[in-house]
Amino acid sequence: MIKVGIIGAGRIGRVHSESISKYVKGAEIKAISDIKVTEELQSWAESMGIPNVYDDYRKILQDPEIDAVLVCSSTNTHAPISIEAAQAGKHIFCEKPIDPNKDKIREVLDVVAKAGVKFQVGFNRRFDHNFKAIRDRVVAGDIGEPHLIRVTSRDPDAPPIEYVKVSGGLFFDMTIHDFDMIRYLSGSEVVEVYAAGGVLVNPEIGKAGDIDTAVITLKLANGAIGVIDNSRKAVYGYDQRAEVFGSKGAVQTRNDTDSTAVYSCEAGVIAEKPKYFFLERYMQSFADEIKCFVDSIVNDKPTLVNGNDGLQPVLIALAAKKSLDEGRPVKISEVA
Amino acid sequence: MIKVGIIGAGRIGRVHSESISKYVKGAEIKAISDIKVTEELQSWAESMGIPNVYDDYRKILQDPEIDAVLVCSSTNTHAPISIEAAQAGKHIFCEKPIDPNKDKIREVLDVVAKAGVKFQVGFNRRFDHNFKAIRDRVVAGDIGEPHLIRVTSRDPDAPPIEYVKVSGGLFFDMTIHDFDMIRYLSGSEVVEVYAAGGVLVNPEIGKAGDIDTAVITLKLANGAIGVIDNSRKAVYGYDQRAEVFGSKGAVQTRNDTDSTAVYSCEAGVIAEKPKYFFLERYMQSFADEIKCFVDSIVNDKPTLVNGNDGLQPVLIALAAKKSLDEGRPVKISEVA
Amino acid sequence: MIKVGIIGAGRIGRVHSESISKYVKGAEIKAISDIKVTEELQSWAESMGIPNVYDDYRKILQDPEIDAVLVCSSTNTHAPISIEAAQAGKHIFCEKPIDPNKDKIREVLDVVAKAGVKFQVGFNRRFDHNFKAIRDRVVAGDIGEPHLIRVTSRDPDAPPIEYVKVSGGLFFDMTIHDFDMIRYLSGSEVVEVYAAGGVLVNPEIGKAGDIDTAVITLKLANGAIGVIDNSRKAVYGYDQRAEVFGSKGAVQTRNDTDSTAVYSCEAGVIAEKPKYFFLERYMQSFADEIKCFVDSIVNDKPTLVNGNDGLQPVLIALAAKKSLDEGRPVKISEVA
Amino acid sequence: MIKVGIIGAGRIGRVHSESISKYVKGAEIKAISDIKVTEELQSWAESMGIPNVYDDYRKILQDPEIDAVLVCSSTNTHAPISIEAAQAGKHIFCEKPIDPNKDKIREVLDVVAKAGVKFQVGFNRRFDHNFKAIRDRVVAGDIGEPHLIRVTSRDPDAPPIEYVKVSGGLFFDMTIHDFDMIRYLSGSEVVEVYAAGGVLVNPEIGKAGDIDTAVITLKLANGAIGVIDNSRKAVYGYDQRAEVFGSKGAVQTRNDTDSTAVYSCEAGVIAEKPKYFFLERYMQSFADEIKCFVDSIVNDKPTLVNGNDGLQPVLIALAAKKSLDEGRPVKISEVA
Repeated sequence: MIKVGIIGAGRIGRVHSESISKYVKGAEIKAISDIKVTEELQSWAESMGIPNVYDDYRKILQDPEIDAVLVCSSTNTHAPISIEAAQAGKHIFCEKPIDPNKDKIREVLDVVAKAGVKFQVGFNRRFDHNFKAIRDRVVAGDIGEPHLIRVTSRDPDAPPIEYVKVSGGLFFDMTIHDFDMIRYLSGSEVVEVYAAGGVLVNPEIGKAGDIDTAVITLKLANGAIGVIDNSRKAVYGYDQRAEVFGSKGAVQTRNDTDSTAVYSCEAGVIAEKPKYFFLERYMQSFADEIKCFVDSIVNDKPTLVNGNDGLQPVLIALAAKKSLDEGRPVKISEVA
Repeated sequence: MIKVGIIGAGRIGRVHSESISKYVKGAEIKAISDIKVTEELQSWAESMGIPNVYDDYRKILQDPEIDAVLVCSSTNTHAPISIEAAQAGKHIFCEKPIDPNKDKIREVLDVVAKAGVKFQVGFNRRFDHNFKAIRDRVVAGDIGEPHLIRVTSRDPDAPPIEYVKVSGGLFFDMTIHDFDMIRYLSGSEVVEVYAAGGVLVNPEIGKAGDIDTAVITLKLANGAIGVIDNSRKAVYGYDQRAEVFGSKGAVQTRNDTDSTAVYSCEAGVIAEKPKYFFLERYMQSFADEIKCFVDSIVNDKPTLVNGNDGLQPVLIALAAKKSLDEGRPVKISEVA
Repeated sequence: MIKVGIIGAGRIGRVHSESISKYVKGAEIKAISDIKVTEELQSWAESMGIPNVYDDYRKILQDPEIDAVLVCSSTNTHAPISIEAAQAGKHIFCEKPIDPNKDKIREVLDVVAKAGVKFQVGFNRRFDHNFKAIRDRVVAGDIGEPHLIRVTSRDPDAPPIEYVKVSGGLFFDMTIHDFDMIRYLSGSEVVEVYAAGGVLVNPEIGKAGDIDTAVITLKLANGAIGVIDNSRKAVYGYDQRAEVFGSKGAVQTRNDTDSTAVYSCEAGVIAEKPKYFFLERYMQSFADEIKCFVDSIVNDKPTLVNGNDGLQPVLIALAAKKSLDEGRPVKISEVA
Repeated sequence: MIKVGIIGAGRIGRVHSESISKYVKGAEIKAISDIKVTEELQSWAESMGIPNVYDDYRKILQDPEIDAVLVCSSTNTHAPISIEAAQAGKHIFCEKPIDPNKDKIREVLDVVAKAGVKFQVGFNRRFDHNFKAIRDRVVAGDIGEPHLIRVTSRDPDAPPIEYVKVSGGLFFDMTIHDFDMIRYLSGSEVVEVYAAGGVLVNPEIGKAGDIDTAVITLKLANGAIGVIDNSRKAVYGYDQRAEVFGSKGAVQTRNDTDSTAVYSCEAGVIAEKPKYFFLERYMQSFADEIKCFVDSIVNDKPTLVNGNDGLQPVLIALAAKKSLDEGRPVKISEVA
C-alpha cells in the first residue's frame, strides 16, 4: 500500500481522488492540497476519507510517509511543482501538458532523471479500452507495417470563450491528446506536420486568435502518415474514433454508448449518441492510468507514459501552430 | 437458350418476366397467357419483347418450341395446370403453394415424377444473399450441429382485409416461407409444431377468422428447435432476419437497407429502415431462382427446391393451424 | 449512511461486498457471516474493511446497528433466513430464487408484509444498462402496445454436472432470469407457458434429468407473446439479447464487448466476442441493484423488484417444467 | 427510345454495354467500335444484340440514327473523339478523365458548348447508393454547414507495374474519383491542396516515379476542409467510405458486403469483407449514370456531371502532384 498526495483539488484532482478510492487497491490518499481551501473542499475530502487538506502543497512534499504525488494544479505550475517534488524524492504523476515551453519540460525531465523517481504524464486515453485494443493489434503484428493512422477527435461543444482565451489554443488544449495518440498507435515518432484549420463553429473563437476546426497531417519516422480531424462542436456528442491501417489489415474503433439499444420506428433505425464527454467516456481510463502509475512504483517498472511522451506532443503542437501560421509543412526539428 | 412460357400475368408473373429479360441469359420468353388479355397487358408484353400473348394457357402448353412454363396463375389453378404441363412434357416452375390441399400436391408430384420433367417451387428466399450466407455456413460445418433456428418475419403492413379473407390465413400465406426457411437452414424435417397467435394489429383480421401475430415453435427430426415470430405490421418496414445457432457457433443476418449511411445528430444516430417490402428486398432472388431452374433444365441437374420442398411447408402450416385451433402441439404425422 | 450485514460469503456474497465498497456511497458493511469461517475469508474481509466475520448469521440479525441484510446463503436457506430477518426488523435483499416452493415464498412475503420491512429480490438484470434501455423505451410509450418480446439467453459453457444435479433444473437455475425479464420488459403477467427442450450440448445433463437447450413461449395477460431461447453452451461467449416489438416500433439490444475495435484482414471483418460471463457482463448491475435497495430504505420508497417479482418467475418455471414434462401448454393458474 | 453508339470495346465499354442492355429501358445500342475487331468481340456483340461492329468510330459518328455516343476508348483519344462527336451533333458521355491536359479539356468544353450537345463525364460514384445518401443529407440541409469532408479510398491490390507506369500516377488514376467526391459531397470548390504521400506497398511503384499511399488535405471555398486517404492495397478488400460533418450533424457510410451475415465463433464475431473491387461495388452506379445521361437527352435536362465537373478534378490532381513534388500546399489558381 503506497500513500499519495494530490496537489490541486480542481476537476481533474477530484476525478483522480475518486478513482483511487474506488478502483486503485494498492494506494490510499493521505492528503490533498489546493491554493484555496473552502468548506466545500473540506467536506468533500472528509466524504472521500482523505485525512488531510492543505493550502500549501509543500506540506505534502515534506511528509515523509507520502510516496507519490499527483500534480493536478494549474498548467503553469506543473513544471515547478514537479521539480520540487522530484527533489523531495516523490514519484510524480503529472497532468498534461508538463509545460507549454519545451525547455521547461526538458528541465523537469533532467531533474526527474537525476532524482531517480518515477514520472508519468496524464495521457489517460492510452488506457482507454478502445484505443488500447487498437494498440494491442498493432503490437501483436496483426496490422503489419502501419501505413495510415487516423484519429477523429471532436468535442460535444466549444468551451466558454474565456476558457479558449487562456487554453493555449486548440493544438495545445485539445489536439495534444491526439498527437500523443498518433505516436502511441503508430509506435513511431512524428517528423513533420501540416495543419489546415478554420473558424467554422464560433467566430468569437477566431477573434480570440484560435481555430475550432482542423485537419492535421503528420509524417512519421517509419514512413506512415497520420491524420487528425478536430472540431470543437459535434452536435451529436463526443466523437472519439481511431484507425490504424497497414500491410496486413486495419483496426478501427467506434464510439462508446450508454447502451446497445437500437430503436426501429417510422423515423428510422435509431441508436444512441456517443457518451457525452470525457468524464463519461474516459472515466475508467483515469483509474487505469493511476493503477499503472502505482504498479510502476510498487514493482519498480517503467511508467507507460514517460517524460519523452510528455515532451513530444508539445513539440508536435508547436510545429502544428507554426504550420498553421505560415501555411506550410513544418519539421519537428525546426521547433525542437 | 431455352424458351419459356409464363402462365399468369399478375404481379409475380410480371416480376419473373422482367427478371428473365434482365438477368437470365440462357432463357427467352416466347409467350405469356392470362385469363384477361387487356390492352395494357399487350403493350407491356410488347415493351418486354414477348412476342405472344394468349388468353388460354393451353396454347403455351401446345407450343412444341416451349421447353418450360412458369405457373404464376391464381393459387387454386397451380395444381391442375402443373398436371397438364407435366403431361405436355414441359418443365415446371410453380409458384408457392402448389396447393393448400396435401393430396392434390401429392397428385401433382406423382404426375411430374412419371413425366420426368423438372419441377421447382417458388420459394425464392432460399436464393436471397443473406439466407444463402447462413445456409452456406451450415453446410460448411461452421455451425456444427444446429441447436436453435430462429426466423423473424414481419411485414411492413397488413394486407387489405379482402385479401386476408381469401389468403388461406397467416400460416399459408405468410409463414409458409418461414416454414420452408426453417427446413432449408436446418437441413432437417419438422416433426412437431406449436403455434401461439393473436390479433394485435387489426381486429378486422380477427373477425375474418385469422391472426396477425404469431410465435411458432418447431421440433425438428435432428433434435434442433426452430422458432418463428411473425407480425403483419412492423411500422419500421419489412423485417426479415434469421439465425442458426449450433455446437460450433452461430450465424445471423440483419435486414438489407438502401444504403449504409448513418446520420448522427442531436436526436441520435440514425440508420436507414429495412428495404420496404418483398419486391425491394427479394428482387435479385426472383432472378436467381429462375437462373437455377434454367440451369437444372439445361444441365439436367436436380432443382434446388423440389416437389417435397413444396409439400412439407404445407403440412407444417396444416399442423400450425391445428395447433392454434386446439391449443396444443401437433405432430406433422397427425396431418400428413 | 446505512449499515448492512451480508449473510453468506460465497461468490455472490463477495460480489455484493465488493460492489458496495466501491460503488454504493450510502452504505457500509458492518459484518459478514458464513457457516464456514476460514482464514482466507478472514483475510479477505479485512482487505475489504469489513470489521466483523461471524459463523452464525444470527449475530447479524441481533446487531441493533445493522439496518439491512443481504441473504446470499444457499438457496434452501433463503426463505427461513428471510423470515427471521424480517422478524428481527431488518430490511432484506434476498438472492433469487426466494425458494423453489411457491408456498414457502408466500409465507416469506406474508411475514415481510407484516414486519413492514423493505424486501428486494436479486434480479440484477433489470438494472443492466441494455435491458433498462429497452424498458425505458417501453415505459416511454415508444413501442406502443407490446406484441412480441424476445429474450435470447445463452451461457458460454455448461456448468459442472455436479452443479446441474442440484441446480433445480434449467428453468429454475437459468431461465428464471429470463422469465423475470419477460415480465419486466412487457409490463404484463404471464398466463400460459409452452416449453420445448432438448439435450443437445451434453448427454450427461440429460442423464441427470435436465435439459440444456430450450425455447419457451409465453402468453401474456395483455395479449403479447413472449419467447425465450436458451442454451447452456454458446462457444462464442455469453449471449444476452432482448427485443420488444410493438405497434409503434421495436427496440433491441446487442451484446456488450470489451471494446468496439473491429479488425479487417484477409480472413474477414472481425469484432470482439461478447463479454465472457455474468460477472463481466453484469457487474455494474450488481452495484446498481444494491444502490436501488439502499435508496428504497433511505428514502422509504418501494423496491424495484418486490416480493411478487420474486414469486412470479418461480410460478412460470413450475409451469414450464410441467409443460416440458407433459408436452402441452400449461396455464400459470394450474401451478399457482 | 434513343440509339447509342459505344466507342471502345474494352472493359468499361463492355460494362456500359451490359448495363444499358439490362437496366436502361430508354436506350438501345446500335453500334460498337474498336480499333481491333476480333472474332471474340463480334461474338460478344452478337450475344448482346448489338447489330453493328466497326473498326472505325467515324462510322458511328456518321450514322444519322445514332443520337449519342459513349467515349470509352483510351484516355488520350477522349478529347479528339469528343470534339469530333460534338461536331457531328452527337450527345456525349465521356469516360474520365476528359484529358490529363487542362487546355485540351477546355477546348473540348468549348466545342461542346458551341454544338449544344449534352456532355456527361463518367464519375459513376456520384450515382452510388451510399455516396448519394450522403449527398442527399447535405442537400436536405441535415448536416448544416459542412465543416469536414472525409473520403477513404483504398484498392484491394496494386495494379501491375506496367499499368502504373502509364496510369498518369495515383492522383490522376485513382484519387481523381475522390477529388470529384469531395466536390460532390461538399457542394463547394477546392481552392488549395496539400498532399503527403509515400511508397509503402511496393517499392517498384516508387521506382516508376509514383506513390501508393497518400493523405490529401483540401481547403474548400466555403471554408470546409476535405481530407482523402488512399492506399493501393487494402488486404481486406475495396475500402470505400466517406463522411460529411457539419454544424447540424454528420453522415457517414460503411462498405457494402455480399451479405449481412455475421458469424460468431470461438475466434470472434466475423462479418464479411467489403465487396471485392469496383465492378462488384459500383455496378449499379454504372447503369444509373447512363440512365441519367439518357434522361438528360430525352427530357432536355442538364447532365448531373457536366464539363466543369470533368475539368476541376484534373486541376486538383495537378495541384496535388505539384504539392507532393514541392512539399508545400498549392493553390488551384497556380495550376488552372
